[in-house]
Amino acid sequence: MISRPASPPVRSADDYRDTIEQLLRPLAARPVDTVPVAEALGRQLAADMHAPIDLPVFRNSAMDGYAVRAQDVAAPPVDLPLTGVVAAGDPGLQPLALGTARKVMTGAPLPPGADCVVPVEDTTAGADTVRIERGRSAGEFVREPGSDVRAGAELVTAGTTLAPRHIAACAAAGLAQLPVFAPVRAVVISTGDELVAPGSPLRPGQIYNSNGIALAAALTANGVEVIAVQHSGDDAAQFRHLLRTAASAADLVITTGGVSKGDFEVVREVLIPLGGEFGSVAMQPGGPQGLTVVDGVPVLSFPGNPVSAVVSFEVLARPILRRLAGLGPVPEYELPLLGAVRRSPEGRRQFLRGKLVWKGSQPRAVELVSGPGSHLVASMAAADVLIDIPAAVTELAAGTSVRVWTI
Amino acid sequence: MISRPASPPVRSADDYRDTIEQLLRPLAARPVDTVPVAEALGRQLAADMHAPIDLPVFRNSAMDGYAVRAQDVAAPPVDLPLTGVVAAGDPGLQPLALGTARKVMTGAPLPPGADCVVPVEDTTAGADTVRIERGRSAGEFVREPGSDVRAGAELVTAGTTLAPRHIAACAAAGLAQLPVFAPVRAVVISTGDELVAPGSPLRPGQIYNSNGIALAAALTANGVEVIAVQHSGDDAAQFRHLLRTAASAADLVITTGGVSKGDFEVVREVLIPLGGEFGSVAMQPGGPQGLTVVDGVPVLSFPGNPVSAVVSFEVLARPILRRLAGLGPVPEYELPLLGAVRRSPEGRRQFLRGKLVWKGSQPRAVELVSGPGSHLVASMAAADVLIDIPAAVTELAAGTSVRVWTI
Repeated sequence: MISRPASPPVRSADDYRDTIEQLLRPLAARPVDTVPVAEALGRQLAADMHAPIDLPVFRNSAMDGYAVRAQDVAAPPVDLPLTGVVAAGDPGLQPLALGTARKVMTGAPLPPGADCVVPVEDTTAGADTVRIERGRSAGEFVREPGSDVRAGAELVTAGTTLAPRHIAACAAAGLAQLPVFAPVRAVVISTGDELVAPGSPLRPGQIYNSNGIALAAALTANGVEVIAVQHSGDDAAQFRHLLRTAASAADLVITTGGVSKGDFEVVREVLIPLGGEFGSVAMQPGGPQGLTVVDGVPVLSFPGNPVSAVVSFEVLARPILRRLAGLGPVPEYELPLLGAVRRSPEGRRQFLRGKLVWKGSQPRAVELVSGPGSHLVASMAAADVLIDIPAAVTELAAGTSVRVWTI
Repeated sequence: MISRPASPPVRSADDYRDTIEQLLRPLAARPVDTVPVAEALGRQLAADMHAPIDLPVFRNSAMDGYAVRAQDVAAPPVDLPLTGVVAAGDPGLQPLALGTARKVMTGAPLPPGADCVVPVEDTTAGADTVRIERGRSAGEFVREPGSDVRAGAELVTAGTTLAPRHIAACAAAGLAQLPVFAPVRAVVISTGDELVAPGSPLRPGQIYNSNGIALAAALTANGVEVIAVQHSGDDAAQFRHLLRTAASAADLVITTGGVSKGDFEVVREVLIPLGGEFGSVAMQPGGPQGLTVVDGVPVLSFPGNPVSAVVSFEVLARPILRRLAGLGPVPEYELPLLGAVRRSPEGRRQFLRGKLVWKGSQPRAVELVSGPGSHLVASMAAADVLIDIPAAVTELAAGTSVRVWTI
């Protein structure tokens, strides 16, 4: 029991996040899975993909029309004998004789010898001839092989999170399987004798456990695979057991609760002897933090207030996990604050919950949606941003420009 | 076979999308699933959720410290006899006698009779007394029941797409199950004898089928559940069979190919007799379009060029499907265009592929990443926006402000 330890040095949130990033850096080299291209949406490509073939793979028509030689239609109108039709999918290997035309569908191979296509709109079909009413130059309405991408050229770079457009390009090039990084796998362990699963009745002094579920959702939304969500009472043996089991299966463990200066801090009690560093980060909420490596696996210990846990995740873990997953940066804005902040703690960066005020498709301002209390978890449902108030700022007038990021 | 039909009236993309929206409107009333709160991330809430209990559910301490009566600590320093400790999770029903203090942990119930908490930092613990070094007023560091949300108040509104913060609020209020809308279920059928699944060898005239996979990915990324991706050759019986099967299982069918003025247009051939409206939409790519209701199920028929199919989805379907899924609007920007567009077809709105140029976390400009050709599917992989060029515009100077939206 540690009731008033010597205060460890207080670190800034940025500095602390850098330390976490160092710790998580090895997770960039994760195992590679091979998945069918049709199941690769949202996965992170593990190797540069090159086109195995030219695209288009053969010379083909850009229009429904008639394949001709440009020289044969130089003086329209001109009637040319029709020598068949090439549908998309036909081999189209039969050469086009001089002074003739062949009907071609969009995407159909251009007959050897033809050098342009006259769109059907500029023609009149006869029984076995076609009248060409407008001339075309060589190359018009012809898609040349390799004009989209050449065989061997890079299609999609390693590290890309695969969006539908990447999947379209890979499929079009015939790539049936794609190498993708296995996601970071996490286990969440929330601690506290007072926590009860939603759906059960509450006895006096108990509250519902929202941390584990909320962090699991936040991890999932940021590209992490959550393999288990556990709850431990304030019992060292139980917590130690869950922790070892988690470390044997996951790349990352997040714990909540048990990190502050109270008497029943199971997380500190178990992790400090394992080399855990517990101390204060100059932020609010989310001040008390712990960081340990257990059996080679990083363990981030967040405070137990639901808002503190979520803000800790947002500030200290989410940007790193998004980079690891190949997801884009969290959208940030500089926006005027509607309403004033009368008091912000000196020396601590404060993260208030706010809501964007939109004008059309652009955010124009941000309003506060809840007080600063770290227990205000229901109020947080209305927030879509964190408002980042620097440590040195102790009050803000209405209209001041503030930095916000979406949660 | 329709080789030069009388041109149907050309409709604007906005007008055509409105028609599709009317057709899809009944999908707003979808069946409701009940899911555990831990599995509700990204689902759309089907009913307003109200807090069944006050949050906090009981009066509790905001700090690790000592519960006291404010009047007993009005003239610090003062030594008070210690009467035990209340951990988080303890029932905490024992009243606090006048002139005494009780140690309380963050989140622990405040003993009846106590009206404030003195943080541990402002105290010195003795053997069975505590020295209070700073007075506090009634209410300080006390979280009142219902100060976050009152029982009966609304927590999350029907229609909300559930983010981690909503899940946190619902879990904290003890809601174990949430009612959510079933997703829109879609089947994609790509048509064309020339299409071969990625991974198989290509014979002359054949190309890889990317449309089905790309549209399935785009649907999935926009909240739709894709229940099947099918391929039909240009065979009416085969297409009709796949279509009827799809309509018996899905809320929406999307077909690709077979909609233009060529000779082998299986989609037109099957759907026009079923009442399908096929015509031209004044956009490029994506001009030829069809719309049919088969057995009560809307069928959107997109053109078969991969870029045309994806742009059709982006322009004509995605905004509607996102609204149905409760997802936010597609991010749009007005940005200067790097480089000029020398030619854009008069009378047709053109959608070019572009890439955002970032400065820090804000897009500052957009550059073209590919030509206008609707076969340029590999080049599209590099694009992250569509550049929307109005129908009346035929050329754009470098630096002109253009409307773009993310794809």
